[in-house]
Amino acid sequence: MLSISEALVSISKALRPVGIEAVQLDAAFGRVCAQNVSALLDAPPFAASAMDGYAVRFADIADDTSPLACLDVVKAGDRDVAPLAPGTCARIFTGAPIPPGADTVVLQEQARSEGGAVSFLAGIERYRHIRAAGSNFRAGDVTAHAGRRLTARDIGLLAASGHNTLRVHRRPQAAILSTGDELSSRFRAGEGAQILDANRPALTALVAAWGGKPIDLGIAPDRPDALVHALDGVQADLLIVTGGASVGTFDLVRPALERLGFSASFRKIRMRPGKATMFGVLAGLPVLSLPGNAVAALVSALVFLKPTLSALAGLGFEEVPRDCAVLAAPLSAVGPRDTFLRGRLDRGADGRPTFTAMAMQDTAMLLGLAKAHALTIRPANAPPAQPGEMIEVIRFD
Amino acid sequence: MLSISEALVSISKALRPVGIEAVQLDAAFGRVCAQNVSALLDAPPFAASAMDGYAVRFADIADDTSPLACLDVVKAGDRDVAPLAPGTCARIFTGAPIPPGADTVVLQEQARSEGGAVSFLAGIERYRHIRAAGSNFRAGDVTAHAGRRLTARDIGLLAASGHNTLRVHRRPQAAILSTGDELSSRFRAGEGAQILDANRPALTALVAAWGGKPIDLGIAPDRPDALVHALDGVQADLLIVTGGASVGTFDLVRPALERLGFSASFRKIRMRPGKATMFGVLAGLPVLSLPGNAVAALVSALVFLKPTLSALAGLGFEEVPRDCAVLAAPLSAVGPRDTFLRGRLDRGADGRPTFTAMAMQDTAMLLGLAKAHALTIRPANAPPAQPGEMIEVIRFD
Repeated sequence: MLSISEALVSISKALRPVGIEAVQLDAAFGRVCAQNVSALLDAPPFAASAMDGYAVRFADIADDTSPLACLDVVKAGDRDVAPLAPGTCARIFTGAPIPPGADTVVLQEQARSEGGAVSFLAGIERYRHIRAAGSNFRAGDVTAHAGRRLTARDIGLLAASGHNTLRVHRRPQAAILSTGDELSSRFRAGEGAQILDANRPALTALVAAWGGKPIDLGIAPDRPDALVHALDGVQADLLIVTGGASVGTFDLVRPALERLGFSASFRKIRMRPGKATMFGVLAGLPVLSLPGNAVAALVSALVFLKPTLSALAGLGFEEVPRDCAVLAAPLSAVGPRDTFLRGRLDRGADGRPTFTAMAMQDTAMLLGLAKAHALTIRPANAPPAQPGEMIEVIRFD
Repeated sequence: MLSISEALVSISKALRPVGIEAVQLDAAFGRVCAQNVSALLDAPPFAASAMDGYAVRFADIADDTSPLACLDVVKAGDRDVAPLAPGTCARIFTGAPIPPGADTVVLQEQARSEGGAVSFLAGIERYRHIRAAGSNFRAGDVTAHAGRRLTARDIGLLAASGHNTLRVHRRPQAAILSTGDELSSRFRAGEGAQILDANRPALTALVAAWGGKPIDLGIAPDRPDALVHALDGVQADLLIVTGGASVGTFDLVRPALERLGFSASFRKIRMRPGKATMFGVLAGLPVLSLPGNAVAALVSALVFLKPTLSALAGLGFEEVPRDCAVLAAPLSAVGPRDTFLRGRLDRGADGRPTFTAMAMQDTAMLLGLAKAHALTIRPANAPPAQPGEMIEVIRFD
């Protein structure tokens, strides 16, 4: 059995970023930039006032407190602003171009206007309240780097730097197949005992949340031919198989994949839950097989599917970020596998997050999983842990 | 001028959750549940094995170590399982129904099968490795509460509890209008100085990221009639106006809104940046007017727009969550307004996040904003802060 780190390395070697497409900027939020993008213009495009006030030649007010005639008003959006005549000032508003000749903006709070003439308080600083042309960015400056997942702030910056379309990586298409005779996809009232498939809907949501495009392959029954049929010729960037509950199902999926030419990188991982995670390649298609148990499937998805989708999306292969939290209640010693415990995060008196493991860690407990905030990772063979110890957590969502 | 808290209270009073629609479960991720949802069935629907092993009557192995005949195999998905004859055992797999009469599952690792008979190690515990019917949830248990934003785990739980469609709040529609003669929405090469509208694209992305549906109203020029025309009859749940850069523009927007019957709850907030944030109601439509300055607009959006969209979406009005971080570099004293500083978060040696304010806090600096990880909030009139102090931060994204 591989460790989690070994498994991550093994997966990362099999992945290449998907191709590139052009999108409008208003559809680029959350997408991964496929090339460095450079500003097409300077911002601001001209020296501009940073405040509302008066544009002056500093020399006119430095030693002489007599009022200056105010002969012009300059607003944001004005073009071809007239030069400032020596010995005069101009009313100016935030964002307006500085009139040629002016070198200082005096805040309106530091000025007094009376009958067309303006006098200024002492102690004005030269060059103040002027944003130089290009002081935010210059034409040619990189405003978004290849491999960055674009935030709303990036979208604003890209718009400001002149871009309306953008080359981004496609969303990786992830086909999701559930397997297991015991599963139904739809509740039928009055039909007796039914077990409804939770994994496919949850994984569909996770794939979308993590930047992929889910493709629903439905539920395949536990018959070799039916499995081979379901697994054959899948058109996607990734195939996710989520096994039925039992070893029996697991034992059917691998032979079916192998009949189609699948080569497994690993079949089990030294973790709990999530041991029955398998990864390999089927005719160039990466295949991630997750446990059938719903909690195990979600833990394994967080640890392995999320970085897989990131790598396919062009973000690079990055482990899921771990935060620190203070343990609020004791934890018992850990067995021979890295162990994930569900729990709640609260905010401690000193402002640091605290983690309390949930009493019920049975992996069938979807209800408890939905109520948890985070997982903590306890290394294999770790001794008992006491309240106050610092532990690592992975936050959900 | 109101404080941030007073402004938030004032906004919250004007908001009502939007209406309700039915969606398929696969479109419900991230949506806000509009009613309590109860499970339609028990899970598991019958007592089921939690492991792969053997189902036994405990009495048969408690005091007697002779092997039991293994006469049956029960797999997940099997129905109408035959009762376990006394003095026999059944091979059983994870998720399979417990045969009537059996009360214990013995792990396969604790059993030895030879010629159709199975012997068991000593020390087996009664009732082990059986999940009782309904031990995850019972029909009628609430599996998602009204007002919850649905996670992937919720989607899995809702699927498991029998739901394929769901009643959720509509996505609040937020119409976004930029104003300002100085703004263009598209770069034109060779046309001289241009200032491109960053706010509308960034706000469009934020509205979508925060669960709303953006409606693009374009850019209105700084003319009273044109503004009235642009602001009149907007069909949405929220109108966001983002002012031009100057006081001049701001002074045009309010009269234009007032000509249409707008009543302002407040016009300015004691914060920096973001002072020029205004909120009110126009013929039943909540209107949030954000500063024209791009950084101020984004800070104000984080503080006011995000809770506004949450309240409209049915989540309730919640302030943006604040995390704690350790200050890594000194901060100077704060003026008379609550002050937001952009900065980077790193992870300190003790695992706690550290915050370093960016050197350049000029609010025109979109480039710096895009590189920041978080804002810190410094209360009005706060004294200088030293490295090591605990401060509050709001994380971006």
